[in-house]
Amino acid sequence: MHCDTILLASKLLPDAYSPPLSQAALAIAQGRILAIGTQKNILADFSTDSVRDLGCALIVPGFVNAHTHVAMTYLRGYADDMQLMPWLTEKIFPKEAQLTPEIVYTFSLLGFAEMLRCGTTSCMDMYLFEEEVFRAAYDCGIRLRAGEGVFFFPSVSSPNAEAALAKTLELAETYANTSRLSAVISPHSLYTTDPGILEACMDVAERYELPIHMHVAESSDETRQVVERYGMRPLPFCQHLGLFSHTLSLAHVVDTTDEDYALLASAKNCVCITNPTSNMKLASGICHLSRFATENIPTALGTDGAASNNSLNMVNAMNHCALIHKVWQNDPTCMDAQTVFAMATTGGARALALPDIGRLAPGMRADLAVFDLQAPNLCPCYNPVSHLVYAASGHEVILTMVDGTILYDHGTFTTFSYEELLRHIQTLLAKAS
Amino acid sequence: MHCDTILLASKLLPDAYSPPLSQAALAIAQGRILAIGTQKNILADFSTDSVRDLGCALIVPGFVNAHTHVAMTYLRGYADDMQLMPWLTEKIFPKEAQLTPEIVYTFSLLGFAEMLRCGTTSCMDMYLFEEEVFRAAYDCGIRLRAGEGVFFFPSVSSPNAEAALAKTLELAETYANTSRLSAVISPHSLYTTDPGILEACMDVAERYELPIHMHVAESSDETRQVVERYGMRPLPFCQHLGLFSHTLSLAHVVDTTDEDYALLASAKNCVCITNPTSNMKLASGICHLSRFATENIPTALGTDGAASNNSLNMVNAMNHCALIHKVWQNDPTCMDAQTVFAMATTGGARALALPDIGRLAPGMRADLAVFDLQAPNLCPCYNPVSHLVYAASGHEVILTMVDGTILYDHGTFTTFSYEELLRHIQTLLAKAS
Repeated sequence: MHCDTILLASKLLPDAYSPPLSQAALAIAQGRILAIGTQKNILADFSTDSVRDLGCALIVPGFVNAHTHVAMTYLRGYADDMQLMPWLTEKIFPKEAQLTPEIVYTFSLLGFAEMLRCGTTSCMDMYLFEEEVFRAAYDCGIRLRAGEGVFFFPSVSSPNAEAALAKTLELAETYANTSRLSAVISPHSLYTTDPGILEACMDVAERYELPIHMHVAESSDETRQVVERYGMRPLPFCQHLGLFSHTLSLAHVVDTTDEDYALLASAKNCVCITNPTSNMKLASGICHLSRFATENIPTALGTDGAASNNSLNMVNAMNHCALIHKVWQNDPTCMDAQTVFAMATTGGARALALPDIGRLAPGMRADLAVFDLQAPNLCPCYNPVSHLVYAASGHEVILTMVDGTILYDHGTFTTFSYEELLRHIQTLLAKAS
Repeated sequence: MHCDTILLASKLLPDAYSPPLSQAALAIAQGRILAIGTQKNILADFSTDSVRDLGCALIVPGFVNAHTHVAMTYLRGYADDMQLMPWLTEKIFPKEAQLTPEIVYTFSLLGFAEMLRCGTTSCMDMYLFEEEVFRAAYDCGIRLRAGEGVFFFPSVSSPNAEAALAKTLELAETYANTSRLSAVISPHSLYTTDPGILEACMDVAERYELPIHMHVAESSDETRQVVERYGMRPLPFCQHLGLFSHTLSLAHVVDTTDEDYALLASAKNCVCITNPTSNMKLASGICHLSRFATENIPTALGTDGAASNNSLNMVNAMNHCALIHKVWQNDPTCMDAQTVFAMATTGGARALALPDIGRLAPGMRADLAVFDLQAPNLCPCYNPVSHLVYAASGHEVILTMVDGTILYDHGTFTTFSYEELLRHIQTLLAKAS
C-alpha cells in the first residue's frame, strides 16, 4: 500500500499507557497515521518515496497545550516576583492596552515557534486580536483552537462582549475548511463577565456547536469576589448558570472544596486544565489533581501565558505538575509520569474537543514530536515516559509534525523564516520602547 | 596588554546583583578573567590572536552544582514514582552493589557532559569509586570538589570508613597541582556513620585543611532515626559533635525547627545546599529558604543525583527553587530570580570553598556559560536574570568554559569524543543487563 511518508526511529511511544515500540516505524497519508509497527513490518506493508530515518530517537504524540495566551510572549520576563494585583495593574494591563494587531501576530508566531521547537503540536488560546493568533497559526501550521476573550468592559480589540463573540464566530467560519483551526467560545472568567454575557456565550456555543473555555477558581481572591457578587462559590455558580450542560473546559480550578469535586465529577463534558507553572509562580495555589483522579474528573495541562510562566514549554509543565504534587501530598507515588504524560496528550485532546489527536494510532492525525535519545540528559533510557516527565527539557526535540507536515526539523522552521521574525521583533520592540 | 582570548557578546551578566552589560566583552589570560567591559574598551585595551564573537548571546558565570552524585546518571529513570524506602532497597541499592570503576568513570563523564551542555562549570560530588569521578573530571575539564562517601558499613568501593578517608586524602594529593580538582571530606550522613567516624572525619579535615560535606536533615524519617539513637535532632547533634567549627556544607536541610535556624545562623562557616527537584520528587519536604534568608544563613543549590531528579541541570534547579517557594509560602515575591541565581553561582562558590569562582570579575577564574538569546523561549529579553530562572531550559547554552578553556562549543565537547562515550555506554549497559 502506498503512503506519503514513513518515519523510522529506535523507539515510538503510542500513548501514555501502551508499551514503547522498538525499531519502530509509522506510516502517514493525507495527514493521518495509517499504521504503526516495527520497521520491518511497516516497510514490508507500505511503499513511499519519502522514508525518514530519525535514528536513535523517540517518536511521541505531540503535546497539547490546553491553556495559553500565546501572544503574551510579548511580555515574557517583563515583570516577575510581584504580588498579583500590582503585577497586573502596574505592569501587564498598561502594556496590553498598547497591543496592536501586528504585535499580536508577531508574538503569536514567536510563541508557536517556541511550542513547535519543544514538541507542542496543538494549543487552546484565549486573548485579544484573536484573528491575528489564527493568522499566525495558519501561517506556521500548528493546530489551534481559540477564541476572542469576552469581557463586560471594552478590550483593546473588541468594544464589547457581542463584538468579541461575533469575532470568534467569524473566525470559525473563515477557517471552517481547514483541518487545523477551530474556534472556542471564550468568556474570560466569572469576575470579568456577567450572567447576561455568559447566557449569550452559552447560546452561541449551542447554536454553533462550539465548546466553551474559561478561567475558573484561579485564586481565593476570585472566590471572594464571586461570593460577594453572587452569593455562591465559582463552580456552583457555573452550575447555577447552566455552564455544565455545555462542552466545557475550565482553566486553573485551584480554589476548590469537596462540593466542587462532587460537582465536577458529575459533569458530563467538562475538563479541568491545570497550569502548574503559572500557579506556582503567581502563588495562586495548587490544583488538587490527586483528588481529581480519585473522583475521575478529566484533566489536561497548559502553560498559561509567557508573562506568568515564563515559557510555553509543555515538558516543563509536565515536570512541574508531577513534582509539585508529590511534595505537596507528601507522596512520591502520586501524579506518576504516565498520568502526567496522559494529561499532556489525550487529556489535552479532550479539553480541545478534538478526538483525533493525542495518540499515535491508525486513523489519528499525524501530530507528533521526535526526541533525540542521544542527548546527554536522556541517556540511558530505561523508561521513555519517565524521561519525558523527569529528565527531558523539550529542547531535545529534533522534529515536530502537525497533520503529516514537518513544521520543525533539526533547528529549522519549515513554514516561515525565523530569522525574519526575529528581525521584525527587534523593530517592533524598538518602536514600542 | 596581551591576553589569551577575548569573548564578545551582546550581553554579559557579571553576577546576580550587578546590572547586565550591553555590547560586552571579557578578556582572559591564564585561565583567569583580566577584565570585563564594553567591546569598544576591551578591544582598545587588550590585544590577542583569539577574538570570539558570540553574537546575540548572554555570558553568565558558570553554574555551581553544589550537591550531586554524578555517576548516578547510570540509574537515571531506572525507577520513579515510588516510596523512598522500597525505591532505595529494591531498586537503587541492588544496582549500586554492582557498580564497577568502569561504570562510575563512564557515567561520571556522561554526567559531566550533561552539566557542561547546560552551563554548569563546577560541582561537588560524593559517591563511590570517587577516584573514577576525579579521573572523568580531569579528562573532560570540569571543576570538581569531591570525596569518597564515608559509611559505617563496607561499600562496594571502600571496605570501611578509614579506607574511604584514605582514598579522599590520596585523591587530594594526586590532584594537588591541578587548579580544577580538590577534595572534600564526605561522611554520608548521621544515620550511616557514627560519632567515632565523624570524629575521624573532623580530625582529617582539620589536619589537611579540607571542608566537610554531608547530608543532613533530609527527611522527618532521618530525624526520627537520629533522635532515637542520640536523643537529639540532626542539627543540634552536629553541633554537639563539633561539626560547626569546621568549614561545612550540608545537603538538603529540609526537616528543621526554630532551634535549627538559630544554630545555622550562628555557624561561622556553614552553607546549606538545597536540592529542590530531588526533594520534590521524593516528597522529602521543602528547605525553608525564605526563613534562611531572614536569618542570613548562607545557601547554595544542587541537583542531587540523576536517580532522584532526573537531570543534572542547574537551570531546572533554579526554576524549581523559585517556584516551589512562591506557592508554598503563598508569596510570589519570595525567592526572586536574583536570589536564586546568586545561590547557583556565588552561593555555590562558598559551598565549595572556592572563592575565585561564581562571578565574572577581574581576577576570578574564567568559568562561564553563554546562552543563545535568539532561542524562541529567550525572546524578547527584558531581564536576563529573570530569563535564567523562569524562561531558560539550560539547553540554550552554546558555549561553556572552565579555567579559560572552552569545553563545550555549539554541540561539540572539545576534550573527549561524545560519540565514543555513547558507544561505550551501550556496551556497558548490554553487559549489565
